[in-house]
Amino acid sequence: MDDSPLQSHPIRRYQGGIWHALDDELAVEEPLELRVGTPEHSQPLSVTMRTPGHDLELARGWLHAEGLLDAVSGISPLQGAPNVLLLTGDAERLLAARREGVTSSACGVCGSGSVEGLMRRVSAPVWTAPPLSPALIARLPDLLRTAQPAFSASGGLHAAGLLGADGTLLSAYEDVGRHNAVDKLVGAALSRLPLDNHCLVTSSRAGFEIVQKALLAGIPVVVTVGAPSSLAAETALSLGLTLVGFARGGRFNVYAGAERIGG
Amino acid sequence: MDDSPLQSHPIRRYQGGIWHALDDELAVEEPLELRVGTPEHSQPLSVTMRTPGHDLELARGWLHAEGLLDAVSGISPLQGAPNVLLLTGDAERLLAARREGVTSSACGVCGSGSVEGLMRRVSAPVWTAPPLSPALIARLPDLLRTAQPAFSASGGLHAAGLLGADGTLLSAYEDVGRHNAVDKLVGAALSRLPLDNHCLVTSSRAGFEIVQKALLAGIPVVVTVGAPSSLAAETALSLGLTLVGFARGGRFNVYAGAERIGG
Repeated sequence: MDDSPLQSHPIRRYQGGIWHALDDELAVEEPLELRVGTPEHSQPLSVTMRTPGHDLELARGWLHAEGLLDAVSGISPLQGAPNVLLLTGDAERLLAARREGVTSSACGVCGSGSVEGLMRRVSAPVWTAPPLSPALIARLPDLLRTAQPAFSASGGLHAAGLLGADGTLLSAYEDVGRHNAVDKLVGAALSRLPLDNHCLVTSSRAGFEIVQKALLAGIPVVVTVGAPSSLAAETALSLGLTLVGFARGGRFNVYAGAERIGG
Repeated sequence: MDDSPLQSHPIRRYQGGIWHALDDELAVEEPLELRVGTPEHSQPLSVTMRTPGHDLELARGWLHAEGLLDAVSGISPLQGAPNVLLLTGDAERLLAARREGVTSSACGVCGSGSVEGLMRRVSAPVWTAPPLSPALIARLPDLLRTAQPAFSASGGLHAAGLLGADGTLLSAYEDVGRHNAVDKLVGAALSRLPLDNHCLVTSSRAGFEIVQKALLAGIPVVVTVGAPSSLAAETALSLGLTLVGFARGGRFNVYAGAERIGG
């Protein structure tokens, strides 16, 4: 199993008014599932999005934080399933913890989703407006910042903004959690779903779950100030989402769906 | 209910070799619990750490992303409980989702913890070494960066480092999730818990859960490159953890436990 934390991904970069084709190194994001039982008969305990490498340490540290480590007598990789660890021990106590909601310590899918599950739930988002101008995309983070006064004061809040195809900022929400900011934005726009011809801008990185939430709301374009993960880029490619990262300082990288951005 | 996303907190700032006392504005972090049932009889569905404000939108957006919105007929604040929303609707389906692990969309405590629960589980961490020098603390993020090659390449990985009281970097782990990086670090050090006289350095912000994981491992000093949340600072104060934020560019802010840092 390749445990490199980075994965190369072909991108288009817009910088100084010019497009460049190059390869970018993305942080690898993959689900790690903990199951309880035997190789033949096991039940799910948790799913966490993580970067592969030191999986046993991750599982032990997570079980420790959840107060479950002393219920575990052994942890081992499940043969033939590279992203699954099998726990033995007090199965009753471990699975009771699952029922009580102990399922995640990370910004992950928390056991409820997967790429395959997402693909069954969504279709490609719709963009029938003219292509977005690169100059507009490069300005979006500054536009979001004007709607994000608390971030400037604290440095600790994330923001998510919803824009129309003409670049008008329609709404913006702040939260200490990046996923919460997107949930607030979508929750306020439920009566207008799917959000064809809209663009989501976030102050954060783009993990799988940001892409998932955009797709579930039918949003076809996501622009983030931070880096995307490998799984975010792959999911955007698979499902027809335009994913832009590192939008700052007049430049940005396009990881998927460049056809919605003009020349 | 005060829905300001910011909360003032007295801090000590070290900058240019000099200490300053001032107030800093922290992003508010508080748990929001969703419960299912009636005001008299309800059961927990999820707990998410969030910034108050637009709670109904947050709940609706989260339920939408989890595929549960059509099981809900009403959402209303629970009287007398400012951080609880009560859901009515298909209780059976909602609570079945809880059993399947649908409990969080955010970097929160995922239903397993709370400040009160944490206080029952941990005691004040132990620091018997000499006070840390401010110049050393100001250097820690650079030290962590030398152990974090993948971040430099991708901009998308978080790192967590464990240091001895003399500032020696003992271990470092990277992950796309900041909580995972800390879980890996603690998971690799389980045989040495509690980690008296050790210091945790992270490249991320400090939310409640980072502080929680440090306290559960017995680590007395946490230094982060990013901002702390209000709940992280309050928990650190309550439980005797030294919490340092914004450690970058030769300066840092102390949010709790300044007595472990020299003059």
